[in-house]
Amino acid sequence: MPHIKRIHHLAIAVRDMGTGLEFWQQALGLELSERRQVPMEGAEIAFFRLEGGEIELVRPTEPDSGLQRFLEKRGPGIHHVCLEVEGLDALLEQLKARGVRLINETPRLGENGRRYAFIHPESTGGVLVELYE
Amino acid sequence: MPHIKRIHHLAIAVRDMGTGLEFWQQALGLELSERRQVPMEGAEIAFFRLEGGEIELVRPTEPDSGLQRFLEKRGPGIHHVCLEVEGLDALLEQLKARGVRLINETPRLGENGRRYAFIHPESTGGVLVELYE
Repeated sequence: MPHIKRIHHLAIAVRDMGTGLEFWQQALGLELSERRQVPMEGAEIAFFRLEGGEIELVRPTEPDSGLQRFLEKRGPGIHHVCLEVEGLDALLEQLKARGVRLINETPRLGENGRRYAFIHPESTGGVLVELYE
Repeated sequence: MPHIKRIHHLAIAVRDMGTGLEFWQQALGLELSERRQVPMEGAEIAFFRLEGGEIELVRPTEPDSGLQRFLEKRGPGIHHVCLEVEGLDALLEQLKARGVRLINETPRLGENGRRYAFIHPESTGGVLVELYE
């Protein structure tokens, strides 16, 4: 049986990293864990690791990326929520069987070797959901 | 020193609870912890408690609530993220001193006796943030 464990992270789309850091790091006082380019995702990411879950600021570095299109269409704000799961393959089959629209029908491999897949917001009630194993 | 502990919950605005539950409970398989009316917030809320953090589906029950206006303007989707903090009063002072726009300048009392305050999305880069002590 697949199982949803926890909210792994919340990704927040920003137009420029300086403005994002000004609120989340400087005003709110979150401790920046890491900030780096992730070419596979066409993004620069600033990671804030909390006691439970992470907050990530994501800035597009590719002009034709989904993230860039999101910013143009919706403006800055929460981009997606990532849920950590056990049994990703079984969960994707379960979702497909119920007619849920998946962005990734089979898991993709992240740069850290872990597998993930996105569910289309059309099937979730407007939320871009990442499942991460 | 105020301190942000963790992502306490993510609230997802839904137009009707049935559609929301169809994805989050039935397709994704989250276990519904509780579903009840919260008159103080003018909402019906379905709670899914995970190992780390909660997911809440919120449906407006008052026609003139902020939640109802959010749905009309932005459509269903993530409504706010709630961060659990230590030192809420000090944190609000720190935010005010930096010119951050607060929706609640002083904490409000939740129905469970815990204190919370919302930060305006204008100051966070488009994210409605709840701080919860």
